[in-house]
Amino acid sequence: MTKPFLQALKGETLSPPPLWLMRQAGRYLPEYLATRAKSKNFLHFCYSPDLAVEVTLQPLRRYGFDAAILFSDILVVPDALGQKVEFSTGHGPQLEPIKNEAQLEAVLKLDGFHEHLKPVYETMRRLALEIPKTTALIGFSGAPWTVATYMVEGKGSKDYAEVREIAYSDPVFFQRLIDILVDRTASYLIEQVNQGAEALQVFDSWAGVLSETQFVKWVIEPMAEIVKRIKKTHPHVPVIGFPRGAGAMYERFVQETGVDGVGLDHSLPLEWARDHVQKHVTVQGNLDNLLLVSGGEAMEREVKRILEILGQGPFIFNLGHGIVPHTPPEHVARLCALVRGEV
Amino acid sequence: MTKPFLQALKGETLSPPPLWLMRQAGRYLPEYLATRAKSKNFLHFCYSPDLAVEVTLQPLRRYGFDAAILFSDILVVPDALGQKVEFSTGHGPQLEPIKNEAQLEAVLKLDGFHEHLKPVYETMRRLALEIPKTTALIGFSGAPWTVATYMVEGKGSKDYAEVREIAYSDPVFFQRLIDILVDRTASYLIEQVNQGAEALQVFDSWAGVLSETQFVKWVIEPMAEIVKRIKKTHPHVPVIGFPRGAGAMYERFVQETGVDGVGLDHSLPLEWARDHVQKHVTVQGNLDNLLLVSGGEAMEREVKRILEILGQGPFIFNLGHGIVPHTPPEHVARLCALVRGEV
Repeated sequence: MTKPFLQALKGETLSPPPLWLMRQAGRYLPEYLATRAKSKNFLHFCYSPDLAVEVTLQPLRRYGFDAAILFSDILVVPDALGQKVEFSTGHGPQLEPIKNEAQLEAVLKLDGFHEHLKPVYETMRRLALEIPKTTALIGFSGAPWTVATYMVEGKGSKDYAEVREIAYSDPVFFQRLIDILVDRTASYLIEQVNQGAEALQVFDSWAGVLSETQFVKWVIEPMAEIVKRIKKTHPHVPVIGFPRGAGAMYERFVQETGVDGVGLDHSLPLEWARDHVQKHVTVQGNLDNLLLVSGGEAMEREVKRILEILGQGPFIFNLGHGIVPHTPPEHVARLCALVRGEV
Repeated sequence: MTKPFLQALKGETLSPPPLWLMRQAGRYLPEYLATRAKSKNFLHFCYSPDLAVEVTLQPLRRYGFDAAILFSDILVVPDALGQKVEFSTGHGPQLEPIKNEAQLEAVLKLDGFHEHLKPVYETMRRLALEIPKTTALIGFSGAPWTVATYMVEGKGSKDYAEVREIAYSDPVFFQRLIDILVDRTASYLIEQVNQGAEALQVFDSWAGVLSETQFVKWVIEPMAEIVKRIKKTHPHVPVIGFPRGAGAMYERFVQETGVDGVGLDHSLPLEWARDHVQKHVTVQGNLDNLLLVSGGEAMEREVKRILEILGQGPFIFNLGHGIVPHTPPEHVARLCALVRGEV
């Protein structure tokens, strides 16, 4: 059975293009909220295979997306490394921050990493059995830079100034942190493939705040190493990078990391992406997630524009960032119909 | 007397390049803090010509920069338009938010705008008399999009989702707000030139969060109109745009707005900027403001790299964003020596 999502990642041009949406399982769906209510603690929810499998499958039942992404969170990696991670409602994640080598050594547990993540692997194994035959199963992780921002600052940041400054002023510590994350992330992703993932996506949500020099060192180099390690074990599993906000650096990113596909954020100009990014790899994106909230004429025009410009080459339709909680589910249905040419 | 800063904006290549730093007058300088202590209220401080002239001149005495920028704030424009604006220590600006046309009409005062800004014009007039003969005097404003983010959200935002969504869902209101800002900003900048400004810079600090379609509508089109109006009255006064975070959109920005120069943020790759931006206009930037904090070898390497890549064309050395408060003043001195080739 062919899976359009995987064909597109091999470089085929499909019409209509395969379609999935970042955060397609999430708070905008009433059935998600009902399932989420069964667990008080968000990390515990991620580590509950029954619940995680269920919410991963929910959006497929409604919308028949071409791919399903494991329901989990990028912060399971620092959690599995021994850092204290908590999600309190309305405040986002809170971590006990790690700002230097001594704090890193005091916290770091390299043993028991995969043991800690067993429920995630169990979720993946069950998903591989349960998803529809034409749906591809995506594993994922955060990229080292983005995960490091949370580990160092202890929470989501407004401007990432603290972690960027530490990366300049204490490069020995920061390089060690990134090296650990490269190693553990690659190992985590490889194990996801062992359990059934058919493709992988690595989210570098805060790549856009870095200077060019830092981008090369903390985004491109770690990602190139992760891709190399994955390909050594699983040469045919496609890897998608998502260096959100990389701007003109998208071109170097796809040329130097070895990724098979790349997620485009909503700020990237489409003709430029076609000429400088899509000529190297499959592109995925990039409808503004807030246009999916407001919907209407403006959304329809933009969907058409994206299809016209990127649809002539290897392309997967997606958003430029994850679905936000107040997105009307009927706008998602409309989007699916538009992309599939059913309206 | 020739002014290197103005020569560079005319397209001349100078070695060493002219140098100034965004927020060169500010909290990192003890003499600034001493002057700032004379006024309790930040807006009142901006509207006090004695104090504003003094802090504008302070960094020139220390570092002999090639340009001085009027000390003021981008939020004097909403303040002059009748919106309540307050700066509380440690919290950044707070505005009574304007989220729809009714709220806009209830607040908006178009009369008395220039009267309200008289102290700013007085500051400019006195600066024109007092700055050194080879130093250029820059006037400035926020760009309509960036000022609108504060007017609508009522404060600095983490992700600008609310204002971006309103721009999609209520385009009539948002277009009216932008039109008012285009008109008043152009008028404000023209009056700054009347009082002695020799060049103008328009700060679009949050340009980078927009989708391509929104960027064209809320960044490029308003800026093109502002430049057109300025040039009609003052055809020879150079205008610098600073669409921070514009990424690959920098090229269209400089081609379509009519600016004479453009500020590059620290994320923009230098070779790309040279090939796609500097070939159209004078570029200004782009040392990472956090490298100026950490200093040392890493800063020296980056300064050298910037000079090598951008120094072969029309170029003004600057940061990629404003100086942060904990910047050591001796690092600024070192930077000046490096750029001037004195070390």
